[in-house]
Amino acid sequence: MTSPSPEASNSLKVAAGPGGWTDDPAEIAPWLKEWRNRWSGHTPLMLTPRSTDEVARLVRICAEHQVAIVPQGGATGLVGGQVPFGEVLLSLRKMRAVRDVTPLDDAMTVEAGVTLLEAQQAAAAAGRMFPLSLAAEGSATIGGVISTNAGGTAVIRYGVMRDLVLGIEAVLPNGEIFRGLKRLRKDNTGYDLKQLLIGAEGTLGVVTAATLKLFPVMRSRATAMVGLESARDAIELLARAKAETGGGVEAFELMKRIGMEFVLRNIPDTREPLESTPPWYVLIELVSGEPGAAEVGLERILTAAFEEGLIVDAAIARTDSQRADFWKVREEQSAAQKPEGGGWKHDVSVPVSRIADFLDEAAAAVQAFEPGARVSAFGHVGDGNMHYDVLCPPGADHAAFIGRWAEGSQVVHDVVARYDGSISAEHGLGRLKTDEARRYKTPLEIATMKAVREAIDPQRIMNPAVLF
Amino acid sequence: MTSPSPEASNSLKVAAGPGGWTDDPAEIAPWLKEWRNRWSGHTPLMLTPRSTDEVARLVRICAEHQVAIVPQGGATGLVGGQVPFGEVLLSLRKMRAVRDVTPLDDAMTVEAGVTLLEAQQAAAAAGRMFPLSLAAEGSATIGGVISTNAGGTAVIRYGVMRDLVLGIEAVLPNGEIFRGLKRLRKDNTGYDLKQLLIGAEGTLGVVTAATLKLFPVMRSRATAMVGLESARDAIELLARAKAETGGGVEAFELMKRIGMEFVLRNIPDTREPLESTPPWYVLIELVSGEPGAAEVGLERILTAAFEEGLIVDAAIARTDSQRADFWKVREEQSAAQKPEGGGWKHDVSVPVSRIADFLDEAAAAVQAFEPGARVSAFGHVGDGNMHYDVLCPPGADHAAFIGRWAEGSQVVHDVVARYDGSISAEHGLGRLKTDEARRYKTPLEIATMKAVREAIDPQRIMNPAVLF
Repeated sequence: MTSPSPEASNSLKVAAGPGGWTDDPAEIAPWLKEWRNRWSGHTPLMLTPRSTDEVARLVRICAEHQVAIVPQGGATGLVGGQVPFGEVLLSLRKMRAVRDVTPLDDAMTVEAGVTLLEAQQAAAAAGRMFPLSLAAEGSATIGGVISTNAGGTAVIRYGVMRDLVLGIEAVLPNGEIFRGLKRLRKDNTGYDLKQLLIGAEGTLGVVTAATLKLFPVMRSRATAMVGLESARDAIELLARAKAETGGGVEAFELMKRIGMEFVLRNIPDTREPLESTPPWYVLIELVSGEPGAAEVGLERILTAAFEEGLIVDAAIARTDSQRADFWKVREEQSAAQKPEGGGWKHDVSVPVSRIADFLDEAAAAVQAFEPGARVSAFGHVGDGNMHYDVLCPPGADHAAFIGRWAEGSQVVHDVVARYDGSISAEHGLGRLKTDEARRYKTPLEIATMKAVREAIDPQRIMNPAVLF
Repeated sequence: MTSPSPEASNSLKVAAGPGGWTDDPAEIAPWLKEWRNRWSGHTPLMLTPRSTDEVARLVRICAEHQVAIVPQGGATGLVGGQVPFGEVLLSLRKMRAVRDVTPLDDAMTVEAGVTLLEAQQAAAAAGRMFPLSLAAEGSATIGGVISTNAGGTAVIRYGVMRDLVLGIEAVLPNGEIFRGLKRLRKDNTGYDLKQLLIGAEGTLGVVTAATLKLFPVMRSRATAMVGLESARDAIELLARAKAETGGGVEAFELMKRIGMEFVLRNIPDTREPLESTPPWYVLIELVSGEPGAAEVGLERILTAAFEEGLIVDAAIARTDSQRADFWKVREEQSAAQKPEGGGWKHDVSVPVSRIADFLDEAAAAVQAFEPGARVSAFGHVGDGNMHYDVLCPPGADHAAFIGRWAEGSQVVHDVVARYDGSISAEHGLGRLKTDEARRYKTPLEIATMKAVREAIDPQRIMNPAVLF
């Protein structure tokens, strides 16, 4: 890790210009914290360029002086990839232009500091839809969601961020500008370099703008909360819903009763979504291009599933406020754990067909390691991704429990690996999981990643503590 | 280019074993030709391994002896990327296993030598659909369509091959096996190495198997041939159809009257698809998850468009044979040119919103360069991709005309570049277009691609004459 020399620091300040930098600790402080308070970083200098040319100038100076850089968007990452520890902090948050929206191309070009919510709004204003959606969308920025290849709740229908990017503009580690803002759906003229930048967590360059895919606004939408006896039944329901609707399932979120109880107990203004209290819940949302078709389809699917005993209860949202209530009990699953004492958090994925077996085996492994621990597994089961959280056994010593986090995570991740899964489905590796990932990636994978990184950033100045 | 030494050759033959290699020119000959007869290559040795381990052993020997390799699938590529000129030919066509199909994951794993048609059939047998579809699908293999990031007719709804691959198994240039056959929809644990192999035209390794995304079988489908006054009207119709159906447009193929005339004149068993003879045609196909909805939607969209004067004629296919007739006049557009004397062929894309302007400007540029030349532009306009073919002026010297191909292509490609387009939308660069692409890629792009290639294949033994 190289902090800037006085000359380098001076060059950066001159290049950034008045208002383009600060070394005032009070101004910098809010950008050094991670919201779960796991990290609090430090940096000698925060740069806030307003244009791609400015970013290029600053990165070029860093390259000349071998100064390490941590790029940052909305600072909402959950694995510490955006937190500097001595590196210069390069914040993209002042690059906020929506450069263009072209509805005929189903495309728009926005700068890195535009928030996900603002991007969704720009699309809506043009009569189109940008589908990526996640809890932090009011703060998370486009540069950040590209660099972490973010997921969220609509992946089952629209894919992850990688699937939603047509073009990228970025400053590479040598300070040169990669001008790849294409609006093309097809372009086979060599390696697709933008794919390297997506999900690279800022290690291969600084994303400054992107051209994103837009989609039609759907003409009907229907939401239900469903009660089930098992996760296995949920997977069967998912398969039927996808087949029956020709891909009209936009969200399929699984929750356990224990997670529902945490929400009802700890989050104000929540209520039981069903009359019964089943062991498992699914929040399902269907969309259709045909007016009314989503509602009709959902009713038909749930009626058939109920008659066959595949589901044990269901409530279809009849109003927007009922729909919001269903989503609230889903979205508060994580926050509702805090008053229970917090826990070991995991962001894992396994093949959809193996989710039920994985949950059984992981639960057994966790109980063997930590008898009495409470597991709240919930999330985007439609794409195999679960937030698998292990909470302290009631009455146990919480500090000691948290002290076993790393060891406990290995127990969970070893089961994930046996199911050909991923130990970071959507959050990335960052500072939190890079070491842990060495256990599960092959030497060939790590060597290949290192070789590619060295080819593009031979001085390793871009986010050096992150990834391999 | 390094041909194998006698020792290397001998090691390869021993490792390939009986039936796993040949140096018989007669046996090799069919695999050296490209179907447009533009190239006829040569090789001292053709290897036909049956397993990933065999491929790894062979590539390791090549790496040790610095022997260059051209990997080959169905040999249907249109830019010569699969044709050896002295390199060892590594054919994957004996790796034909469908390793597994797991409908609950909407995924299947197939080996590189499985044809695209066989992959579609394996998906259908499991009640699912694999959407990539192109004219050569009976011969083109999965390894090939991955390595060229193939497109085809359903890209508008399902994306290109890159969008359809969940995991890849490949032998890297050092002979090690990259085991990336994941069935995960979300996995953020470092660079996505499979993205590098997709579209790399065999320059970064040999794809031996892949896990592919499957989709629900749609429950209704409707097809129409539409007549229009202009390409601009076609783009407007496209936007409406996408918005009205919520993304239900599966194909949207544009043709000019001159292309239709070539087909009617030169291809047996074809007939006028409409009662009128409009200057432009669109073949549109809608799908829906709702039974009957595609038909209803298509009728509604075309009726409204006709009443407003956006389209001048339309015929909805009422039978499968009528649908097949519509597709036939589209699919024969290229073959129908041959009796007219052939021409300069281009596979270009521009942003959808700029297609009409591009066609005007390109036509003017072609006329200025070659007065009287006939332009047949047709193709996947829904994703901005057109096959832009320039035919000899009637009565002109055909050999001299073909002699001006390279120069004429620059005229077309310069217009494409002005419209932020691609000079190879779906065929790749191969031997045909790598040099031409140097005119349009930036030095930074070329340098970055070279650096990545050198990181992964430092000896440049993989398809060395292809790409940068």
